[in-house]
Amino acid sequence: MNHQILVLGTGKSTSYLLDYLLDKAKEEELHITIADLHPEILPEKILKHRHTTIVTLDIKDTDKRTKLIQESELVISMLPAFLHILVAKDCLAAGKHLVTASYISDALQQLDAEVKQKGLVFMNEIGLDPGIDHMSAMEVIDRIRDNGGKMVLFESFCGGLVAPENDTNLWNYKFTWNPRNVVIAGQGGTAKFIQEGTYKYIPYHKLFRRTEFLDVEGYGKFEAYANRDSLKYREAYGLQDVLTLYRGTMRRVGFSKAWHMFVQLGMTDDSYLLENSKGMTFREFTNLFLPYSPTDSVELKLRHYLKIDQDDIMWEKLMELNLFDDKKTIPLKNASPAQVLQYILEQSWTLQDGEKDMIVMYHKFGYELNGQKYQIDANMVVKGENQTYTAMAKTVGLPVAIAALKIIKGEINTPGVQIPITKEVYKPILEELKNHGIVFKEHKVPYLGYNPDSVAS
Amino acid sequence: MNHQILVLGTGKSTSYLLDYLLDKAKEEELHITIADLHPEILPEKILKHRHTTIVTLDIKDTDKRTKLIQESELVISMLPAFLHILVAKDCLAAGKHLVTASYISDALQQLDAEVKQKGLVFMNEIGLDPGIDHMSAMEVIDRIRDNGGKMVLFESFCGGLVAPENDTNLWNYKFTWNPRNVVIAGQGGTAKFIQEGTYKYIPYHKLFRRTEFLDVEGYGKFEAYANRDSLKYREAYGLQDVLTLYRGTMRRVGFSKAWHMFVQLGMTDDSYLLENSKGMTFREFTNLFLPYSPTDSVELKLRHYLKIDQDDIMWEKLMELNLFDDKKTIPLKNASPAQVLQYILEQSWTLQDGEKDMIVMYHKFGYELNGQKYQIDANMVVKGENQTYTAMAKTVGLPVAIAALKIIKGEINTPGVQIPITKEVYKPILEELKNHGIVFKEHKVPYLGYNPDSVAS
Repeated sequence: MNHQILVLGTGKSTSYLLDYLLDKAKEEELHITIADLHPEILPEKILKHRHTTIVTLDIKDTDKRTKLIQESELVISMLPAFLHILVAKDCLAAGKHLVTASYISDALQQLDAEVKQKGLVFMNEIGLDPGIDHMSAMEVIDRIRDNGGKMVLFESFCGGLVAPENDTNLWNYKFTWNPRNVVIAGQGGTAKFIQEGTYKYIPYHKLFRRTEFLDVEGYGKFEAYANRDSLKYREAYGLQDVLTLYRGTMRRVGFSKAWHMFVQLGMTDDSYLLENSKGMTFREFTNLFLPYSPTDSVELKLRHYLKIDQDDIMWEKLMELNLFDDKKTIPLKNASPAQVLQYILEQSWTLQDGEKDMIVMYHKFGYELNGQKYQIDANMVVKGENQTYTAMAKTVGLPVAIAALKIIKGEINTPGVQIPITKEVYKPILEELKNHGIVFKEHKVPYLGYNPDSVAS
Repeated sequence: MNHQILVLGTGKSTSYLLDYLLDKAKEEELHITIADLHPEILPEKILKHRHTTIVTLDIKDTDKRTKLIQESELVISMLPAFLHILVAKDCLAAGKHLVTASYISDALQQLDAEVKQKGLVFMNEIGLDPGIDHMSAMEVIDRIRDNGGKMVLFESFCGGLVAPENDTNLWNYKFTWNPRNVVIAGQGGTAKFIQEGTYKYIPYHKLFRRTEFLDVEGYGKFEAYANRDSLKYREAYGLQDVLTLYRGTMRRVGFSKAWHMFVQLGMTDDSYLLENSKGMTFREFTNLFLPYSPTDSVELKLRHYLKIDQDDIMWEKLMELNLFDDKKTIPLKNASPAQVLQYILEQSWTLQDGEKDMIVMYHKFGYELNGQKYQIDANMVVKGENQTYTAMAKTVGLPVAIAALKIIKGEINTPGVQIPITKEVYKPILEELKNHGIVFKEHKVPYLGYNPDSVAS
């Protein structure tokens, strides 16, 4: 008999995921039911594949959704994160396994006892970040511990960027994923982390001025700004006693300093709506955040406000975005500053046909062994092939697909609502990811502790 | 028969209020019932006054509260603002007038129709700010209109400061009211106003760098930062068509630039709790917001981070507050950065015995008459006598007391949930305030429109 897998959602990150499952369909006797509000956007080869059933589904249609879940053995939810709980409850009721690439919500966590009782695997956070970060970090951390080492430092960074060959603007950045998340990044609350045993806090309006630098062999220099809560996985990873714990988002050097201009102006604010955004010119938008003057230009007011010298590259970065254009207008009605900024950036930062994205991940592991301190740095770079087969889709979708198959085959079978931090889970998945070019390079480096020399300010 | 007035709450702002009512008690046949959780802190002369009844009341004690309200003719609530709605509902049920110095909450506004139906006066926002600002502004605005003028600009500023003779620190500031409100000032959301017909927005982290300057004859120069919503009273004042509408908070020049250091560091953040605030030294607190370094001092890290030159007065301002002291400790458990900062500031900025406060209010009125533009500036300065008879208590308490008496006497009788913006209300109250030294000085000045030369950046 066939294994029935239900895939909910056919968004950007499902290209590699579906290909992987369909490649294995014959050999592993899989039948894939793919349900989405608009499944017709899928490529012909999937729509007509002999191992697929394509279903048009409004996820709010409880009867149809429940029925599809009952008919499957395992459900992969690639829906927007807030919808997972709906699916999870159905899976629990029907006794089906579940795989998602999203963070575990409190509501989902509360199902843990029942999920365990029914012997089900609800695997979450098994995409890129969260996902590959968990697995690759735990692989090294467990190895250090198995050898008798004691962890003292863990730093982890990830970024979704444009591939070097298509890195053609002054910001060294294009949108390769959800632009909104980029515009409002860092606004969830004060960033918090630990450096050499001391708690540190960075308010949002300083976040992009407190970056750290990273070198990746063959790819040059990157910078990273702190994620909101670096301490989130402290207990899950067993790092309660480490002196330094820091997680960050990677960009090309110079991005953060330039982004800080938007933050200072207030253009990233998503907490209120502008009075009259529709039809406003880019120039008028910029002027909203500058003092009134009957004579001075918007340009000079901005230069003065942000203290930008006339030969500063920051200025060129703003000009590149047409921020002072008095012809281009905003089509959005009642938009927040962040929404308007996103629109303006999308005019410049949208990937063009044939352009490729790139994922970079970087970990630092500091540990003590026999009274000596050591450090291992590990990094991964994955480039996309095109705008369907993106590095993001690959690194998010493949771990999900691999995990799903291993759950079906009973190779991953510890029940519960979980993330991929146990050997049972990460070992085989990381091993298989290597076959797809998702590989970490490790370097032994001198232990420097938290290294202030790599901090910008 | 006596007029029964119930005063709920005996906080800082009731000294002048109670004296005023008791001064008038014989002549106007008033009997004042004063209810508080700790009424015993009142001075002997009030406790033993023949026209007072002193009641110990827990405001949550519904039976006792209701009974007191039923026995009165008018209630003055000087309780914390969130409690007014409790009192207002009792007043409505019992058919009693109400006076408060607080902003009208949505819940209170919803009682308007019933209050009108019962012919009751619920007078609110009749303290200083809100209160005297409404009355003094509307007095000039109505006069301009009555003469055929058309308003084009309205700016209004108010500040609670220390009197010049006790202005002894580098910040030219001491706490004269609720310190918490000073520490978290501006955090309610992006400041919004109109300058010459254009909306303008200032995010919190730039609020203290976009100040405006004001001169008050005999008192020198002040600065003001924008209040959150300058447009709040646009309709109430009938200013829908003015080109400039701005409200601000006054400080001595230089305060805002220095305060901006706290904002940049993140010390005013009230949105999260520190991990281990109790027992932390002032120096450790400061270091929370600075990058880790194994060698550099907290001092140098802060100077570098905030770009403070060695001869900059900003540095002296920080030193004056002992921000780098490694002996002084924080006694507060699980405190937010804002709470810790408040504690540190209270060590330096608490008014000492015999020190006096000062209230400054400043309005600008721009208008058009017969094709010409004109401007009137009006300002008021009130100094306190001591720490009981403060300028704040006077300017908050006297309008409340005067309004209460005029409602009792039927001189103010238009029913409804209201603020003091009608002639019936503001004329007699402003007139009487003059007898107590609360006087506005008016100056005709050249109309400059919104004047960019008085803007710091």
